[in-house]
Amino acid sequence: MTTEHKPFLNQDPETKKYLLNHTMLRVKDPKVSLDFYERVLGMRLLRSVDFTEWKFSLYFLGYVPDETVIPQDDPQKSAFVAGREGILELTHNHGTELDSKTPYHNGNTEPRGFGHICISVPDIKAACARFEKLGVTFQKKLNEGGMKNIAFIRDPDEYWIEVIQAG
Amino acid sequence: MTTEHKPFLNQDPETKKYLLNHTMLRVKDPKVSLDFYERVLGMRLLRSVDFTEWKFSLYFLGYVPDETVIPQDDPQKSAFVAGREGILELTHNHGTELDSKTPYHNGNTEPRGFGHICISVPDIKAACARFEKLGVTFQKKLNEGGMKNIAFIRDPDEYWIEVIQAG
Repeated sequence: MTTEHKPFLNQDPETKKYLLNHTMLRVKDPKVSLDFYERVLGMRLLRSVDFTEWKFSLYFLGYVPDETVIPQDDPQKSAFVAGREGILELTHNHGTELDSKTPYHNGNTEPRGFGHICISVPDIKAACARFEKLGVTFQKKLNEGGMKNIAFIRDPDEYWIEVIQAG
Repeated sequence: MTTEHKPFLNQDPETKKYLLNHTMLRVKDPKVSLDFYERVLGMRLLRSVDFTEWKFSLYFLGYVPDETVIPQDDPQKSAFVAGREGILELTHNHGTELDSKTPYHNGNTEPRGFGHICISVPDIKAACARFEKLGVTFQKKLNEGGMKNIAFIRDPDEYWIEVIQAG
């Protein structure tokens, strides 16, 4: 079994402007998750929205140079988020923040499926040293296992985040 | 419960060049999944790699204008993929293609966790009409449910893909 696969080269022109916009993960407590994704991973909260009647809230995060690029009003925020790649959507079902532990499954024990999200960083040794200093939980440190050029950390709900070196 | 959250504005400069690189999903049969992501969704296969000893292969897909932007050699391909956002990594554990149905769990029944990936498209009505014509399975059509401006389709492993309108 190998990856011998003849690339498909007749992409329908109708798909030309499609983007891979976001990945959605459910989280137990948005306070804890936002602290992790904003302070530890350096993402920005680009938009949030409450569905009070349906008892859930959504938080859209992404890497942007600074907060000034984020529009002020919600219709513009919504368009800003929808027009980009690299968005993480966190779903909070109201009340789960009171659970003693996360009610969510990270996909890496049975039943498996989703595996991880991944951030690329300019200096993986510096990034991992910083994560250690900040008390982040590692699933696999740089010097562990068969692949010495990648690490895996865990977010507050135990989702795995791969860390790779860019370029 | 609302999304009242004071955005964190002191992002560590060390995180400045971090990118949300990819999301990894396990798939039963890469032939079927690649056909779906390349032909139906219009992504390009940017890189693939076999771990023969460990019996798995990885396929990295993303939206690029055309195939000419994809480097030819693997070290360059690897850097090209690591330096971008909006990548989908498909993991194939060798042998699962012989299973009668997908061994994987899409996260939307218990135990829940991961919810979906999302593509944004320039014309959601045209995109959904095209998906119908191509025989794609819908989880939620545009005119169904409480939210008339989004749709959900399913990939060959039953993972949900939200479809939203860009801009």
